[in-house]
Amino acid sequence: MPTIFTKIIKGDIPSYKIAEDEKYYAFLDINPFSKGHVLVVPKVEIDYLFDIEDNLYTGLMLFSKKVAIAIKEALLCHRVGVLVQGTEVPHAHVHLIPFYTPSGAEIFGRQKITMSDTEFEEVRKNISNKFNEIFVKSKK
Amino acid sequence: MPTIFTKIIKGDIPSYKIAEDEKYYAFLDINPFSKGHVLVVPKVEIDYLFDIEDNLYTGLMLFSKKVAIAIKEALLCHRVGVLVQGTEVPHAHVHLIPFYTPSGAEIFGRQKITMSDTEFEEVRKNISNKFNEIFVKSKK
Repeated sequence: MPTIFTKIIKGDIPSYKIAEDEKYYAFLDINPFSKGHVLVVPKVEIDYLFDIEDNLYTGLMLFSKKVAIAIKEALLCHRVGVLVQGTEVPHAHVHLIPFYTPSGAEIFGRQKITMSDTEFEEVRKNISNKFNEIFVKSKK
Repeated sequence: MPTIFTKIIKGDIPSYKIAEDEKYYAFLDINPFSKGHVLVVPKVEIDYLFDIEDNLYTGLMLFSKKVAIAIKEALLCHRVGVLVQGTEVPHAHVHLIPFYTPSGAEIFGRQKITMSDTEFEEVRKNISNKFNEIFVKSKK
């Protein structure tokens, strides 16, 4: 049975898509720690991050870096933190979590935030546009 | 002024060293979330993870992967989580945090644990020996 992330990648479940290429897919976490919290996943289903072979793994980390740069430039957060727990969905995923204060460390102990569909869509558009501006349009 | 991690790398401050190569250094976090919590740092001082240029960044992630594999094999944990906050020391560092249960997600909300010097040294030796066994001796 496909994971929920595979269903999202295939479009069977809707998502607030930030960016994708042939190997990776990035979308907003709808249960976010902070505004602009993004999940980055490989398109192939591999449960545990460190079971991913080196090339696909470093590609995932580079794609995550690009998304993190777009998040920071779009939302003007202090920086973007990284979290990989891997205990909820058996499909490896990198959490990119914006910090809005220099002492953002407390974010991991905080409650999740709630956002409306309109807010999610606005944040999605901001980050996605920034990603395209930096990493896609510049290649043309 | 050098960061505390640079002092550790140079040996001016003692650490429970797990592994190092010419670019990276891994050592036990002495304020751990769980037994075998390791920090991996680049030897050059760069504050923010996503400011690290691509080659050094993917190398840091690959070195972290090797250490994570050694942690899991040495301590027989369920898996190893990843956390990068970057709000405490202005020198990028990857936290590798062993989970000992399938539902290890709660670890980030938990108290830190305390360990004696003897326990730290035993854990250090186990992980370091496993790292050398898998990644160093096999190359000879």
